[in-house]
Amino acid sequence: VSTTSYSVTGLTCGHCVTAVTGQLNALPEVSGVHVDLVAGGVSTVTVTSAEPLTEQAVAAALDEAGYQLA
Amino acid sequence: VSTTSYSVTGLTCGHCVTAVTGQLNALPEVSGVHVDLVAGGVSTVTVTSAEPLTEQAVAAALDEAGYQLA
Repeated sequence: VSTTSYSVTGLTCGHCVTAVTGQLNALPEVSGVHVDLVAGGVSTVTVTSAEPLTEQAVAAALDEAGYQLA
Repeated sequence: VSTTSYSVTGLTCGHCVTAVTGQLNALPEVSGVHVDLVAGGVSTVTVTSAEPLTEQAVAAALDEAGYQLA
């Protein structure tokens, strides 16, 4: 099991947290997502996965939700 | 047909716009909703309805979505 935190910009509210959480949970390796929201700033997204994720995969999921790695 | 604009606080992003729009559209009198988003400030929500809405009804719908009249 791998747990990694990412800095993500653009989140402003709980709806954004829900969107990011849902998109990352859709990755088959992912078993858990936690978001520390810093509205309008740099939020911390912590992802637990069965195997380490590539940063590319994480960035793609975030982009799908409309957000970017800081 | 009645069109009225309301000042609403707490909206920060497109998800908030969707939430407010959906909640107001759920009122049977409402035929249209337009939101001018001012992220983190005072947004303007314009509601078109078959009959004038009470401010109480609008406030209740906004509250249901998690927002308040300014």
